[in-house]
Amino acid sequence: MSSKSFHPPKRTLMGPGPSDVNPRVLEAMSRPTIGHLDPVFVGLMDDMKGLLQYAFQTKNELTMPVSAPGSAGMETCFANLVEPGDKVIVCRNGVFGMRMTENVERCGGEAILVDDEWGQPVDPAKLEEALKANPDACIVAFVHAETSTGAQSDAKTLVEIAHKYDCLTIVDAVTSLGGTPLMVDEWGIDSIYSGTQKCLSCTPGLSPISFNEAALEKIKNRKTKVQSWFLDLNLVMGYWGGGAKRAYHHTAPINSLYGLHESLVILEEEGIENSWARHAHHHAALRDGFEAMGLKFIVDAESRLPQLNSVTIPEGVDEAAVRGRLLNEYDLEIGAGLGALAGKVWRVGLMGYAANQRNVLFCLQSLDAILTDMGASINSGAAVKAAQAYYAK
Amino acid sequence: MSSKSFHPPKRTLMGPGPSDVNPRVLEAMSRPTIGHLDPVFVGLMDDMKGLLQYAFQTKNELTMPVSAPGSAGMETCFANLVEPGDKVIVCRNGVFGMRMTENVERCGGEAILVDDEWGQPVDPAKLEEALKANPDACIVAFVHAETSTGAQSDAKTLVEIAHKYDCLTIVDAVTSLGGTPLMVDEWGIDSIYSGTQKCLSCTPGLSPISFNEAALEKIKNRKTKVQSWFLDLNLVMGYWGGGAKRAYHHTAPINSLYGLHESLVILEEEGIENSWARHAHHHAALRDGFEAMGLKFIVDAESRLPQLNSVTIPEGVDEAAVRGRLLNEYDLEIGAGLGALAGKVWRVGLMGYAANQRNVLFCLQSLDAILTDMGASINSGAAVKAAQAYYAK
Repeated sequence: MSSKSFHPPKRTLMGPGPSDVNPRVLEAMSRPTIGHLDPVFVGLMDDMKGLLQYAFQTKNELTMPVSAPGSAGMETCFANLVEPGDKVIVCRNGVFGMRMTENVERCGGEAILVDDEWGQPVDPAKLEEALKANPDACIVAFVHAETSTGAQSDAKTLVEIAHKYDCLTIVDAVTSLGGTPLMVDEWGIDSIYSGTQKCLSCTPGLSPISFNEAALEKIKNRKTKVQSWFLDLNLVMGYWGGGAKRAYHHTAPINSLYGLHESLVILEEEGIENSWARHAHHHAALRDGFEAMGLKFIVDAESRLPQLNSVTIPEGVDEAAVRGRLLNEYDLEIGAGLGALAGKVWRVGLMGYAANQRNVLFCLQSLDAILTDMGASINSGAAVKAAQAYYAK
Repeated sequence: MSSKSFHPPKRTLMGPGPSDVNPRVLEAMSRPTIGHLDPVFVGLMDDMKGLLQYAFQTKNELTMPVSAPGSAGMETCFANLVEPGDKVIVCRNGVFGMRMTENVERCGGEAILVDDEWGQPVDPAKLEEALKANPDACIVAFVHAETSTGAQSDAKTLVEIAHKYDCLTIVDAVTSLGGTPLMVDEWGIDSIYSGTQKCLSCTPGLSPISFNEAALEKIKNRKTKVQSWFLDLNLVMGYWGGGAKRAYHHTAPINSLYGLHESLVILEEEGIENSWARHAHHHAALRDGFEAMGLKFIVDAESRLPQLNSVTIPEGVDEAAVRGRLLNEYDLEIGAGLGALAGKVWRVGLMGYAANQRNVLFCLQSLDAILTDMGASINSGAAVKAAQAYYAK
């Protein structure tokens, strides 16, 4: 064989992630590599910690990026906090709740499921019932922003209930961090993980995490070793744990960390409240457009995530063909349904750098043109007008 | 706080890795991000597989990069191949053999240790003895190129012995891949992992792996689930396993994979035998320089890795001060000793893009200048001359 350098097309990324990456982040990733124990790099790590604390709205000392994607961040939480025999309440209202269950079981824990319909938020009453029925449960895990459906759960209330029954909490914030209000300290979240490729406008590959003192206490008092050497926070913290002396654990992904750092600097420049407001603003325009077109949201307005819009597909339309045409004719990626929603919805992301007016109008216009061309029963031409009317307000 | 964009200095990286990154790789990493299920990206994945097969000199179908650093590649091998109760012979002649032991134990296996002195290769006779004494062992694990010492073990012979006793093999090739001869199929290696930040001239963060049919067979016949969801090859292969249909497992680190792809294209352009020869060539010049200066190699010539040179420190010299001055005055990074060799050696890498004449001469000249300035008992001025004499041959 004889391979050539890879030159990707320039896509507009409005799926469930990765989302459009800020060009400043891409540029940062191409800066010269330095050593993972270089004092200058250690300075970057310190700065990164402060920026992640800001993004998570926390003062937690243990706040750092795991050197692998969001799924590894999830596993970091479960592998460190769950010991064999532990009873863990898992709230399951989408794909990622299911993945949490897998994690609990592979750590030797027992998962007690609290099920809600896909597209619904987690029902706090059901959680409380499960806690009453399982007084020996020690952890509650739930997804703040379900990427598979676009539903947001009331993290503050769920954490309150968990604490009332002396449980620690593990929270999935992969899609929420930077996109919707998330207050780790104010809400009392014990451990949390996220991803870089959603509302942070960064490339995929790293997973920011944060653990409070109560969570650390449980890790310190484990009777068994963490089953993963790579994700064992007792070891990882020897490197990321602050101070001038950093012990080698694994070689950090230097250039990816440059990218994450830059994306966090950008978040700080914008102000996190402004970022949340921007996501809500452009979501409203997109929503007006979709609804004018005749598409329906599967998540009720009060628990709908602005950054992940799951909408129904017009009857009789080959949804994969539509996505294929958007990609081929417009270089525009939107997402398919996942799991139980495969073939039933499109997932349109408005995440981070992608949450802007140009993308909203471009997406509505392209989708309208293709659906009209395919003879779908939509209100042709109405979508863009509705969004423009929103922006003109 | 108010953070600023990070602008790293331009270092020359001659430690144990990360090593100098080819500028083409850095440029590739800054190309536009596309989706992990985009057909164009799937094409990149197919191409990547072929390039990794070339680098590993294998036809193994399961050849792919793990979405995390080399330590996670190690864990992928152990977590998938070791089941609770399995007896695993671990050959330990440095830090990474010790890490393998940790991995075996955290997977619920029993590690039988075959110890050799740090700086020595693994002794095949000792391995055979251990296999005779443990007829129920099912896996042999060893490090091909010990990054902590610079010693290379005879992988071909060790694999032959393991197979004679019906054991599968797990081989650490983090520092050898691309730098010294490594023939996965010809030597019969069953499973192997490497890193990107050494002789591939790429940034850190990914771990190429390869598994043969016998290893896959053991994974398929496991009685228990792989304890890591993130690293479970049964799941990962749904995404990386080839074919047009790729099932989402986790979001691939897109831009890091652009970088790895570019580094593998560069390796193919050079030709892997030429890359091996280049490492040997510049090592010889560096060796002549170090020896002329009066520094001694801790590894015998016949098992010495060209890409990782561990040399003794002149008596009475503050070795950390020397490394600090190299970094501050010359932007040159060399490595400290690790574990049992901390404070006793320097580790000088000549890996991938860093293995060139300019680096060899720059390193010898800078080290000579600082040691001379510190009054160390070396043959001042002799090192560069000796290397130049080698190159002039």
